[in-house]
Amino acid sequence: ILELNPADGYAVVEPGVVNLHLTRAAEPFGYCYAPDPSSQQACTIGGNVGNNSGGPHTLKYGVTTNHVLGLEMVLPDGRIVVAGGPCEDAPGLDLRGLLVGSEGTLGVVTKIWVRLTPIPPAWRTLLAVFPTFEAAMQGVSTIIAAGIIPAALELMDHLIITAVEQAFHLGLPLDAGAVLLIELDGPDEGLDREAARVGDLCRSVGATEIRAATTAAERAGLWAGRKKAAAAVGRLSPSYCTLDVVIPRTRLPEMATALKAMALRSGLRIANLLHAGDGNLHPLVLFDERVPGELERMMEVSHEIVHQTIALEGSVTGEHGIGIEKVDFMPEQFGAADLAVMGGVKALFDPAGRSNPCKLLPGGATCFDVFPRKQAAA
Amino acid sequence: ILELNPADGYAVVEPGVVNLHLTRAAEPFGYCYAPDPSSQQACTIGGNVGNNSGGPHTLKYGVTTNHVLGLEMVLPDGRIVVAGGPCEDAPGLDLRGLLVGSEGTLGVVTKIWVRLTPIPPAWRTLLAVFPTFEAAMQGVSTIIAAGIIPAALELMDHLIITAVEQAFHLGLPLDAGAVLLIELDGPDEGLDREAARVGDLCRSVGATEIRAATTAAERAGLWAGRKKAAAAVGRLSPSYCTLDVVIPRTRLPEMATALKAMALRSGLRIANLLHAGDGNLHPLVLFDERVPGELERMMEVSHEIVHQTIALEGSVTGEHGIGIEKVDFMPEQFGAADLAVMGGVKALFDPAGRSNPCKLLPGGATCFDVFPRKQAAA
Repeated sequence: ILELNPADGYAVVEPGVVNLHLTRAAEPFGYCYAPDPSSQQACTIGGNVGNNSGGPHTLKYGVTTNHVLGLEMVLPDGRIVVAGGPCEDAPGLDLRGLLVGSEGTLGVVTKIWVRLTPIPPAWRTLLAVFPTFEAAMQGVSTIIAAGIIPAALELMDHLIITAVEQAFHLGLPLDAGAVLLIELDGPDEGLDREAARVGDLCRSVGATEIRAATTAAERAGLWAGRKKAAAAVGRLSPSYCTLDVVIPRTRLPEMATALKAMALRSGLRIANLLHAGDGNLHPLVLFDERVPGELERMMEVSHEIVHQTIALEGSVTGEHGIGIEKVDFMPEQFGAADLAVMGGVKALFDPAGRSNPCKLLPGGATCFDVFPRKQAAA
Repeated sequence: ILELNPADGYAVVEPGVVNLHLTRAAEPFGYCYAPDPSSQQACTIGGNVGNNSGGPHTLKYGVTTNHVLGLEMVLPDGRIVVAGGPCEDAPGLDLRGLLVGSEGTLGVVTKIWVRLTPIPPAWRTLLAVFPTFEAAMQGVSTIIAAGIIPAALELMDHLIITAVEQAFHLGLPLDAGAVLLIELDGPDEGLDREAARVGDLCRSVGATEIRAATTAAERAGLWAGRKKAAAAVGRLSPSYCTLDVVIPRTRLPEMATALKAMALRSGLRIANLLHAGDGNLHPLVLFDERVPGELERMMEVSHEIVHQTIALEGSVTGEHGIGIEKVDFMPEQFGAADLAVMGGVKALFDPAGRSNPCKLLPGGATCFDVFPRKQAAA
């Protein structure tokens, strides 16, 4: 952390600063760094910038690009570009906007100006228990349709609940079809009424129980369970593949139906962990690579989920990035002109294709230009 | 307006839709379009996108780029690029981020996906009266330092108050050095306490009076005064030049001192209208072009304000754009590498320099390539 300036509402960090460490440093001044990916104990601000990371609080607070005021980047040819800075509203072409989420393909970020956010004065954390996955999804739409934007609105399905409960013994309801973890924040006075309203809305679409965290420890326990949920899935299956897709919220029930059909057809279990409020799904496809055919079926299901996402007008990645894994889906997601412009931007910043080659953008000679031997060997 | 989809929290509009008309259309569903420039009765969403417009509620709700989910743009060569869409977190290079604020220099925007924001359930609007401009600026820092982020935090100095009062007869205090217009929003219950706290904070740095709008009509009156303040300045002076600069909030007192010195030195009056919470100043330099020398002195003062902004680590434009007026300041604001990259992006999208030529980026042959006759005539 190069500078902590709560009075002006920003901090300047090097890219290797761990996300949670920034929040811990700002806490004594009453501030935090709002984007809190589940991996926040380990992930770095630089990584967050590369992937434009979201997290549980994206619904209310936005993704990384909404919290990055400026960047210093070294281009592959050694020039240093500064985009934005301590102020809002940097003039000129918004290179900052372009660089956030570019997955290291345009250059190396060396310094980051981030916005600091005042820590909300109070919170209410609720766990709403639903008999089915679909009912929980209905709960999401109902809350949002009522004009309430919770700080977080997370969905864990039956399989995730089972895994988390085995790992952390939080007393989650093992017979539930799904739970919603709902956090409201703001001035203390309005929150009880809002929490009661959210509870009523959930019950109106079938929630059988609403639990409220009454202490900071209970709240921390619920969040620890949620944030370590993906890791806990190791208890259910020797391997799993985590997907990361976003669809408009109102299409979530269609996706739920499609996921069930895929699980049935493939014989694989799909566990679902959602930043439900912003339509960001993390389906985890469970498999055992020692069982012949399971790896292949997992790949098929994964691809099917991505195709289904595009069909539902969604985005093939929310916050985990394109990388290599999803680069082949880019032509399905984007038109030829879109990709040509992105390719042109890549060529402008990195004509030799040296900066994180083979990632993000499909095709082109970039990859094999950089690793000619690999190509020869293949 | 092509589509209004409150359930998914977005609308799709053509660029010619007037900002306020979108909010009016969304109102029956409990939503609004959050960025509300003072010109919102006349300005269009397309114009807002071109300049990445802010407004009084930027402090809490952000600028235009935070509310644009996607864009369709026709490039000068006729290709159509779609950047983003209805979802958060579009993958790939963030062309959306790049295009917002590009002032039409990269192509013609033909369709815009914007986020809709729930209308806050309740508000409190306060007018805090200060003996001096500096005390009001101190009020701004004090409120923010207390961890309160008002929905709006606007400053009007003595000259502006005089003009507004002459035009609208709102009962503003004509003997005040400056007033802060402070709006708090959120659930009703917390607001009275927060408003009382804001009042106490203002009094602690010298506010002599705190008025609260008690009816929707009073609130509307205060906002009408604020939003038409620039126009009202016509009562004070036959002409004026509006500047638009941003500096880190904590540098505001330094800027106040500098502005006073400039007014003294030039003999011109400078009226100050600030989106103070986010450090965005609109100094209005009053002049009369019929008085020999005043036009020249106005230009000198305007340039001095921009130079001072850069010296204070600020940004030469907040929301009004670079256009032609500030294009010569770009090399002072940016490094050579920054400008080279921006120029490269311009050349990539618009190699022939046909899209809004001569704007935003300094130098280059773009301008005279397009208007060779003008050059010949000059």
